[in-house]
Amino acid sequence: MTAVDPNLLSNARSDRVRQVAALGRRAVRDKQGLFLVEGPQAVRELLRYAAPATDALYVTEAAAARHTDIMGLAEEAGVRAHACTEQVLAAMADSEAPQGMVAVARRVDVPLEAALDAVGDDGFAVVLTNVRDPGNAGTVLRGADAFGAAAVLVSAASVDVYNPKVVRSTVGSLFHLPVSVGTPVPELLSACRARGIRLLAADGSGPTSLPDVDLHGAHAWVMGNEAWGLEPETLALCDDAVAIPIQRAESLNLAMAATVCLHSSAAARH
Amino acid sequence: MTAVDPNLLSNARSDRVRQVAALGRRAVRDKQGLFLVEGPQAVRELLRYAAPATDALYVTEAAAARHTDIMGLAEEAGVRAHACTEQVLAAMADSEAPQGMVAVARRVDVPLEAALDAVGDDGFAVVLTNVRDPGNAGTVLRGADAFGAAAVLVSAASVDVYNPKVVRSTVGSLFHLPVSVGTPVPELLSACRARGIRLLAADGSGPTSLPDVDLHGAHAWVMGNEAWGLEPETLALCDDAVAIPIQRAESLNLAMAATVCLHSSAAARH
Repeated sequence: MTAVDPNLLSNARSDRVRQVAALGRRAVRDKQGLFLVEGPQAVRELLRYAAPATDALYVTEAAAARHTDIMGLAEEAGVRAHACTEQVLAAMADSEAPQGMVAVARRVDVPLEAALDAVGDDGFAVVLTNVRDPGNAGTVLRGADAFGAAAVLVSAASVDVYNPKVVRSTVGSLFHLPVSVGTPVPELLSACRARGIRLLAADGSGPTSLPDVDLHGAHAWVMGNEAWGLEPETLALCDDAVAIPIQRAESLNLAMAATVCLHSSAAARH
Repeated sequence: MTAVDPNLLSNARSDRVRQVAALGRRAVRDKQGLFLVEGPQAVRELLRYAAPATDALYVTEAAAARHTDIMGLAEEAGVRAHACTEQVLAAMADSEAPQGMVAVARRVDVPLEAALDAVGDDGFAVVLTNVRDPGNAGTVLRGADAFGAAAVLVSAASVDVYNPKVVRSTVGSLFHLPVSVGTPVPELLSACRARGIRLLAADGSGPTSLPDVDLHGAHAWVMGNEAWGLEPETLALCDDAVAIPIQRAESLNLAMAATVCLHSSAAARH
């Protein structure tokens, strides 16, 4: 295991540990362009799909011994691993149980135009507008990945995709497909329209029923806030507002609605 | 608002408050056959769909004034509301923000045979085996409700559906459809088979692809544990093991998989 730096980091109050832990705060992430990737599963996906974005890797000796595949990926990528005590790792991580492994990575988002290129003439994407809950955003990213969406477009005023809770709940999906962030909603939707990407608002009170929508051709599902849904101005910029037929229950939550919409887009391509 | 008991409960350390708060613990719920229903939305659904199960209702004066519809439902149902201070309500509730309203209700689950009656010849159900996370169980209940499942069958060794986190995340669905609890997995599956209910295991590595499954006729989706999936013995008792076609991502999480399966069963009935 020559890739592991033999100088064991054991001072949980050192400057380095504080600097890594500070990435739990959005202001620090925004300023430094870095974020935390916690746990073996997420670190593995980082090294597989976005190794050049890896800035540093911190592991306990036990975790390095347990995950030789990950240490091999790190070595191939020329990423030097720093050995740490459990205490150091716990102090760095946002989660309570980082399972012996934390990486620091540089941002992996792409410019909006690059994400739209990925959608092309026949792909589908998902647009998050004002989505605030990290778990929901993570689940939508995971669903987009699972169902073969071409891109995820996250508006300004949505949760930070580099929030450690988002990164954890995507289980690596953040590294699998193009994600753009930070564009205000009107500009984001205009850019889609300019590319001929049909904008389908996911809206429980929409006039069109999901089974009646043609899901061939380039389109994007536009998702609103967890509590209040889509803003009227956002709805007005969409081509159609689509409701998932339901029997009972007040409404599906955001993650469930996005899962059904993305699955339907994938199914139309089978 | 004559239904509100004018004797304001203001001692957060009283026996009554401690007794209500103790319902946050499974052993106490099991012994007493009572559970907590927190927040106006869940209390409203309790009073609408299962009012006779209401044992007590605790409200702040502000919440009673804000939710006159709920107070009206309580009055119609002959449920006496006890006025409380914010402190008393916070001490009773499991959640950090019960929004001024907590009810104590008697169990609402039905015998397994009654739940199977509801499935009949053409309904569909969902079976939870070894599901442990309250949020997942709540989301599955909510999905079952939304997509018109006839029943939810929760095995022994799964999370308690009366866990306050489950109750909160179902947003009332627990009161909308028959839920049976506590049957060991083999007996549960045998009882389904004896009724001619086809057992479809939701299994990411199953041999049958979801679009190829005939979802007409009585069937039940059998869901496994969040981390390890379905036990081999459970899989062996099912009629088919069905995978949702995915492009990337290691696998969908339990709640996403259940959402897609239940939506597909509903779509086959449109």
